[in-house]
Amino acid sequence: MSDCLFCKIAAGEIPSTKVYEDEEILAFRDIAPKAPVHILLIPKKHLASLAEAGPEDAALLGKMQLLARQLAEQEGVAESGFRVVANSGPNSGQEVAHLHYHLLGGEPLGDIRG
Amino acid sequence: MSDCLFCKIAAGEIPSTKVYEDEEILAFRDIAPKAPVHILLIPKKHLASLAEAGPEDAALLGKMQLLARQLAEQEGVAESGFRVVANSGPNSGQEVAHLHYHLLGGEPLGDIRG
Repeated sequence: MSDCLFCKIAAGEIPSTKVYEDEEILAFRDIAPKAPVHILLIPKKHLASLAEAGPEDAALLGKMQLLARQLAEQEGVAESGFRVVANSGPNSGQEVAHLHYHLLGGEPLGDIRG
Repeated sequence: MSDCLFCKIAAGEIPSTKVYEDEEILAFRDIAPKAPVHILLIPKKHLASLAEAGPEDAALLGKMQLLARQLAEQEGVAESGFRVVANSGPNSGQEVAHLHYHLLGGEPLGDIRG
């Protein structure tokens, strides 16, 4: 746990450009953005990936989807369009083993896979 | 509403290869799959996109995330990896104006945008 990059960001041990924070969720700008808007939404509690989520996380996951929608609005891309992506496991290209949703927007995003 | 392709699929007016169904949600195989596993998860109620979802949809959205995870397991890609994607609006490439999550897996998926 102590080696998890996103746990450290959630704990404020590693700085991030926060766009939203509450007791359960943190949202911050990706340091290597793939679009004009590229925000990462993470639960503060450690879940390695969506594959590790269970029934007890349903409310949290629903809240994160609505937060993505809210941040899209806040960033001015709700109407022009946005994408919400969760990668889970090796084939997906998940880079940090702490559940995160990407919020992308601000230009045409092309295909949903490479 | 009556012109919505996914409403028609949810109502059984247009056939689909279903992989899951309950009162609220339908999951079926994409007819033009972009990966060995490509399933679409839709709410039966009409929501044009994630941008149209509100606080009353939080539980539904959370349930859909957990269902994506469950279907990944069912399809045998939970460990090898999977991606869950919601496109919303023009820049995202959303093709049907009824909220849907793509579940992709079965091979390396490359980047999260084109």
